[in-house]
Amino acid sequence: MSEISLSAIVAALGGQLHGDGGLQICGLASLESAGPNHISFVSNPRYQQQLVGSKAGCVVVGPSLSGAAVQRGFCIVTDQPYLYFARLTQLWRATVRSARPPKGLAGAVIHPSAVVDAEASVHPTARVGALCVVERGAQIGAGTELKARVTVGEDCVIGARCLLHSGVVIGADGFGFAPDGERWEKIEQLGAVRIGDDVEIGANTCVDRGALQDTVIEDGVKLDNLIQVGHNVRIGRNTAIAGCAGIAGSTTIGAQCTIGGGAVVLGHLQIADGVHISAATVVSKSIKKPGHYTGFFPLDDNASWERNAATLKQLHTLRERIKKLESEPKP
Amino acid sequence: MSEISLSAIVAALGGQLHGDGGLQICGLASLESAGPNHISFVSNPRYQQQLVGSKAGCVVVGPSLSGAAVQRGFCIVTDQPYLYFARLTQLWRATVRSARPPKGLAGAVIHPSAVVDAEASVHPTARVGALCVVERGAQIGAGTELKARVTVGEDCVIGARCLLHSGVVIGADGFGFAPDGERWEKIEQLGAVRIGDDVEIGANTCVDRGALQDTVIEDGVKLDNLIQVGHNVRIGRNTAIAGCAGIAGSTTIGAQCTIGGGAVVLGHLQIADGVHISAATVVSKSIKKPGHYTGFFPLDDNASWERNAATLKQLHTLRERIKKLESEPKP
Amino acid sequence: MSEISLSAIVAALGGQLHGDGGLQICGLASLESAGPNHISFVSNPRYQQQLVGSKAGCVVVGPSLSGAAVQRGFCIVTDQPYLYFARLTQLWRATVRSARPPKGLAGAVIHPSAVVDAEASVHPTARVGALCVVERGAQIGAGTELKARVTVGEDCVIGARCLLHSGVVIGADGFGFAPDGERWEKIEQLGAVRIGDDVEIGANTCVDRGALQDTVIEDGVKLDNLIQVGHNVRIGRNTAIAGCAGIAGSTTIGAQCTIGGGAVVLGHLQIADGVHISAATVVSKSIKKPGHYTGFFPLDDNASWERNAATLKQLHTLRERIKKLESEPKP
Repeated sequence: MSEISLSAIVAALGGQLHGDGGLQICGLASLESAGPNHISFVSNPRYQQQLVGSKAGCVVVGPSLSGAAVQRGFCIVTDQPYLYFARLTQLWRATVRSARPPKGLAGAVIHPSAVVDAEASVHPTARVGALCVVERGAQIGAGTELKARVTVGEDCVIGARCLLHSGVVIGADGFGFAPDGERWEKIEQLGAVRIGDDVEIGANTCVDRGALQDTVIEDGVKLDNLIQVGHNVRIGRNTAIAGCAGIAGSTTIGAQCTIGGGAVVLGHLQIADGVHISAATVVSKSIKKPGHYTGFFPLDDNASWERNAATLKQLHTLRERIKKLESEPKP
Repeated sequence: MSEISLSAIVAALGGQLHGDGGLQICGLASLESAGPNHISFVSNPRYQQQLVGSKAGCVVVGPSLSGAAVQRGFCIVTDQPYLYFARLTQLWRATVRSARPPKGLAGAVIHPSAVVDAEASVHPTARVGALCVVERGAQIGAGTELKARVTVGEDCVIGARCLLHSGVVIGADGFGFAPDGERWEKIEQLGAVRIGDDVEIGANTCVDRGALQDTVIEDGVKLDNLIQVGHNVRIGRNTAIAGCAGIAGSTTIGAQCTIGGGAVVLGHLQIADGVHISAATVVSKSIKKPGHYTGFFPLDDNASWERNAATLKQLHTLRERIKKLESEPKP
Repeated sequence: MSEISLSAIVAALGGQLHGDGGLQICGLASLESAGPNHISFVSNPRYQQQLVGSKAGCVVVGPSLSGAAVQRGFCIVTDQPYLYFARLTQLWRATVRSARPPKGLAGAVIHPSAVVDAEASVHPTARVGALCVVERGAQIGAGTELKARVTVGEDCVIGARCLLHSGVVIGADGFGFAPDGERWEKIEQLGAVRIGDDVEIGANTCVDRGALQDTVIEDGVKLDNLIQVGHNVRIGRNTAIAGCAGIAGSTTIGAQCTIGGGAVVLGHLQIADGVHISAATVVSKSIKKPGHYTGFFPLDDNASWERNAATLKQLHTLRERIKKLESEPKP
């Protein structure tokens, strides 16, 4: 099957269809690029203009845009159009894309090239991709998928319905050493990693095993690519972290947080639930109140930056000079 | 063959030789470390001193240094000595180094340990290294080389003469989720990745597949190691990006740009052609004009940094205080 | 064996035991979570309160806390309790954990799934994990372990007693290109990587091969996960670098340095011995004196950050305004 009718979409996902249910949809597209056999969506009323100008065969909209949408052409009205669209991508993958049946080795539940230790436990409904390594004592939960080239280290536990992308490393040693004169003595990392259900972990992201207890990723957490999660970290339910972020050891991050790309959270901190950290921000102390926190140097043309950066190193002195001016007798 | 004569070099690469073409060269080296059977180069007239003092058997120089170079000893004069040197490294690899013939499995065009889907397409002149994964529908172009342990995901297309280093992941899912109350609903990533010709991608770098359309890397782009390229990004021709940089989703970067190591470019931005971003800089808004842009906190000794950083949080107040002082009556 | 007696611990590691040597220890734990069959440690006198309240069967302490520790219960007194604890984790792994013998393929010295070139040299006491790639001319030293999915490129040398975690890439090409009009000409990277003894390298970290000479990691260096080390870099003895840091090409870092997570060290710099760089700091010039250096934008709530960041772009102007105020005639 390479297309799906509007009726079939509404039958599967709900929503109020305005238009001909027999219209065959052959793809999902943005408002700008959609053609008469595409379905698109708009969730933000600010995009009414683009909605009106779109050539999409059908548009998924919320109630506030339904008037404009009906005037334009076919539409599906739903309370949460973005969420509806997310489910539509899943429907698309499950029906239209799956029409291309997996052939050969790629369709195996445990790919024959994967190295799964005899003492690891892989749920019969889990999938382990090509060239993965699942070490002794590791557990892979129901419906979880490891894409190609994933490592799950000794005794690490992955919950149900997780998706780990290519290159992920779960359970490498945490970075722990005790100084011994000039050299470092290794602290063996005796904990493991426990990952809850419905967690997604992006390509080449690393989650280290704990020193004594386990590193914990709670249910519903979403980690993007190339993220470092240090030993003994705990990340709370449904927190989402964007690419290239680093969470240093023994930090606890609450539930329902978002952390922007390239942010660095130092070690041994406590971040409350509902905290939102901007991209490229350094979190150097615990955050007790929910809210939106930021800290990065604003971009400038290089010459202006050089001037301001040089002055910045005298900022404390400037404050002293202002203080002095303020204390001078006034006329 | 473990050496090459100056005549053979000039025959292959051009340039004006001053000296004995019969001299056998056994290695390339920097001015400081070169000996009488090494060839070196200097492109910047500021290094005339080092040129004069070098023990190199031959030095590649530009016209402005040819006088000093001829006085010193053997040299090859060429308009672009740095480019000449680049080509010399290629000649070296192709002739001297290849004298060591590949043996055993390492010489196979598709390494037998690689997992290449029956529905993937690998050009007969491409090379796929050990333990690579090339998924269904992927295409690998003419003369392209995947080093060991590279993943090219479903339907992703790699052009001709590309070089992908070990650990690269092309076509993991973009980071897309719609909020559904407290949890996240996955947006299936239905696009792929399209990579042009003559692209080099460094170790463990990730390029995510697009949500609806493809993520695109144009011809001649050079990406260093451990870079994250989000979904729906487009990177223009010949742009070069240094290690640990992150490009967030749906951003378009122009042609002939350079982006320094560890820089973060936020999502949904437009960066013009010919923009140069310094290392560790955060790009938080679109850049319409070519130029050199910077934004990172200047290094200081820790005590000074602490003082200035604390004052920085009152900067707005300081401005108000200056304003007030300025508005006070003058004597 | 799943437990070990206090006597056996002291017999192996020394220290002065106060208490019953026959007590069987079944685990290592923090002061807070330890129970009567756990051993814990405390090195900082500030934690005396937690020591006194701990339910641990035995606590490792330094001389300054020995009084409080003896009053509380069993303890081992030693000059360097943190170092003692590190060695205890090693004893634990070597005795208690190894009671679970490796079974099947995971116990092989060179895992059969690894791809080791016939011209590579692996010491008989080294271990090469599942799905590793060791290329032609590479050398792996005595007692060194490559965990799963590590790449060691052509001619790269790893010393003795090293530990390379999953996903590490040693010897990908350095990022070197000469401009040729609008395009880039590749500079073949003809050097290799030389890694000393007792080096640990974290998951998915990359160390690039040199352009002409080798990239060098000296003895005792510890690198965390997802670190980028550019070509021609030299990292001195016992230096430790935390996750997500990037060291650009041709930089030399001294011995006994520490570099925090996410720090960026630009290229062609010299960093002295004994330099400590804070996390997320950008090092943009050479550092000649040992000391502690920092440079990152302090975190703030987003609204305050926006105000201060906007003012920051006028900082130079503010300084001029202060200067002007200072030069005005006083009453």
